[in-house]
Formats: sequence, structure tokens, C-alpha cells
Amino acid sequence: MPKTAGIILVGNEILSGKIEDANAAYLCRELRALGVDVRRIVVIPDEVAAIADEVSAFSRDHDLVFTSGGVGPTHDDVTIEGVARAMGVPVVRHPALVALLSRHYGDRLTETHLKMAEIPEGAELAADEALRFPTIVMRNVHVLPGVPEIFRRKFDALRERFRDQPIHLRNVFVRIGEGSLADDLNGLLAAFPLLQLGSYPEFSNPDYKVKVTLESRDRTYLERALADFLARLPADAVVKVT
Amino acid sequence: MPKTAGIILVGNEILSGKIEDANAAYLCRELRALGVDVRRIVVIPDEVAAIADEVSAFSRDHDLVFTSGGVGPTHDDVTIEGVARAMGVPVVRHPALVALLSRHYGDRLTETHLKMAEIPEGAELAADEALRFPTIVMRNVHVLPGVPEIFRRKFDALRERFRDQPIHLRNVFVRIGEGSLADDLNGLLAAFPLLQLGSYPEFSNPDYKVKVTLESRDRTYLERALADFLARLPADAVVKVT
Repeated sequence: MPKTAGIILVGNEILSGKIEDANAAYLCRELRALGVDVRRIVVIPDEVAAIADEVSAFSRDHDLVFTSGGVGPTHDDVTIEGVARAMGVPVVRHPALVALLSRHYGDRLTETHLKMAEIPEGAELAADEALRFPTIVMRNVHVLPGVPEIFRRKFDALRERFRDQPIHLRNVFVRIGEGSLADDLNGLLAAFPLLQLGSYPEFSNPDYKVKVTLESRDRTYLERALADFLARLPADAVVKVT
Repeated sequence: MPKTAGIILVGNEILSGKIEDANAAYLCRELRALGVDVRRIVVIPDEVAAIADEVSAFSRDHDLVFTSGGVGPTHDDVTIEGVARAMGVPVVRHPALVALLSRHYGDRLTETHLKMAEIPEGAELAADEALRFPTIVMRNVHVLPGVPEIFRRKFDALRERFRDQPIHLRNVFVRIGEGSLADDLNGLLAAFPLLQLGSYPEFSNPDYKVKVTLESRDRTYLERALADFLARLPADAVVKVT
């Protein structure tokens, strides 16, 4: 079975419309390219109980879980506490992180800074030479920060851990509408039940009316389905195939 | 109690990274401006069971629910069926929608087009003169399409239904980091426990290091909290207050 993933965005700032999240869309693209199937995304407030509930359910239901946001030294940074509660372990200070923070802050190090040395007990510190600060991984839960630049840098450092069998994609752009297309799509799915088939109408594009996406992990199956689909369509319906 | 809202995005195309959703961010901003508290967003696949589970939970837990996507004539448009299952009612054809589609398509009307006349039994058709097609509202669940232009037009037509007491916001931009700020934020929250307080570090902005947001539905309380916060900060820490 291919790997599944779930994404938890922790952020009052997203829910209140102050900030547009960019991390989920990035992660969906990257994981898809690695062959991982993202099954669910949720955005929740900066609240320990809400985070614990989601992390617990996501960790059980998916192979890989990624959290974004809620890590840092202030009152609203409660993701580590939520993950620890989900896993039924206490929050502890990790000596290696304390050492890292001590080196960085020197004499200016405060109790507040030391909040960033906290991890759920038993978590792995996934380090990489390119990273200033390691990523906390608790079982299958990868704790990433909300700031997009750092989020991406940390994901990049771990990327190869997640690679799975690739998902192949073909796109068919047609100049007929979804109403005319629906029977052909249903016929195609009846003949190729394992195909992942998407249909995306475009209302303001002069070049085509619908983009149809065909996907499979089996390239031969995909090409057979594509040929079958093209044979179903009226000759002048196809704008292009990519 | 102010109104709460939840947003359900139905979309394999979002999960697979093909399309970046724009509707949730738009809705968060608009609902916030109306004084509605968005508590949760979820992105799920085009699957009836998943939609039914989420709609059922969201409808119970929030005053207002909005779905985006999965409406249309093709095989992957299953939101109406999911909402109906969540509410324990059958899917039926609405005569007014059949009439609308008949007028639009004339002789070309097919069974496939008629899928767009389906509603959960008992749903309201929220119409507006500016809209070509009414919005389906099942109890507290508002079924909106995924296409952003139409999503916005439909939300606009219903907007005034959702208005609540406004949430007031003040922003304080500071040139000190979160590590130095955390104690002041904790002190402020201890003195003003009803304040909604956010802290957003900015790593690549030369003008300030952290944006602090203070929010409340009570303007006087907010202004008192702001004065208290400014008094806590070192004199040269504040870049600007908006």
C-alpha cells in the first residue's frame, strides 16, 4: 500500500484571515511528487486540547503526519504540548537542544528561550548539516514551524525519508463542457475502476472548457485508460493532451 | 455568544497539489469582518462517506458551516449526496431547479444536467436576483461551488445573513524578538484574560521583528489592554501601532 499523509495546520492567524497559509499547498505538491497520498488537511486554533485530539486521530489514520505552526517561545506556541498529550507522554527538555540554545544565546539565554528546547518525551531529533535546528519527530508526526522559508528548509532536509512509488499523471484538455463529458467519464471509470479521475471546469479560459486528469501508479494501466478515454470523445473535442 | 463557523473543502485536486484553494482564505477574511469566529477548516477527498462524516460533525459543532467544491454533473461531484447522508435525508430533484435547467439547456437537457437539480430533501434554496442559480442551504450548511468567482458571488448574495458583533483589532509592530517579548505577552494575558492575543515573528522584514495582534469584541477592553501592553514594552521597542 502506498503511503498516506495528513497535514495539521495550527493557527489562529489562518482562521482569523490574517495570514494565508502557504505550507499546505507546498506540502501537497511535494508529497504528491514523492508518491505520497495526502488524505486530509485540517486547520485548528492554537489550543492544546484541539491539537492533541487531531494529532491522535491523524497519527492513527495516516502513515505520515505533518504539523505546521505553534512552535516558538510565546504563549500561543502550544504544538509540542499538544503532540505530547496526544501520545500520552510528558514534555521534557532535551539536553542537545539546551546546548544548542546556550551556544546561540550565550549570557542572554532565558527561561523563555528554553521553551524551544522542549520535546515530547521519546521524540527523535532529525538533524541535517544544513539545518540550524533539528526537526522534532514524534513517532510518525513531524513537527514543522509555520514560517514558510523554515518550513520548506526543514521539509527538504527530510524529503527522501518519504519517497514512495510515483503517481503518473496525464491531462486531457477538452473544449466541451462537463455536462457533455460526464457520460464518457462514467464509461471510462467503469472500464478502468482503479483509475484516479478528475474533472476541472474552467469558466474564464478561452482555450478549453474542462481539464480531465487521469492518474495511476501503474503507467501501462494509465496509458490504456488514456487511449480508451480519447476513443470515447468526439474527434474535435480534444484541445491537447499532456 | 458570537457565531462560530466551520469550512469544509471537498477536493482531491487540493490534496493532490493540482490546485491551490483560494476559497478558505477568502471566507476567513470575510467572516472575520462580519464578526464570525471561524473555528476549523478541513480538506477532504471527493468521497461520500468522508463528506457525510465531516458535515455531520461540523453541523453539530458550529453555528454556520460552508462547503466548497464537489457540486456539478460529473462522477466526482458528490457533496450533495454527502450532505444528505449527514442529515439522514434522501437526495431529491427540486422542481424549481429542474425548471431552471430546462430553460437554460432547452432541447439539449440530459439526465446528466439534471444531476444539478438534486438537493438534500428539505433544503432551502437561497436565491438572489443577482444569481443565476440559487444556493442550497441544508439547515446550517451552505453548499458552495469550488470555482472561486462563483463561490464569491454566492457568498456575497448571502453575506448579511451572517453578520454578528464586530471583532476589533489593534496591531503593534516591534523591533525586539519573540524571546524578549514572551514575558510581556504573558503578563498582558494575565491582566487581560479575555484578550485574543497573537504574536507573529517576521524573519525577512527589515522594519520589524514581531507583529503582535490584540483583539476583542469590546473596544474599551481592547484599548485598555493596548495601553497596558505599550507600558510594558521598552521605550524604543515599538515601530508602529495600527
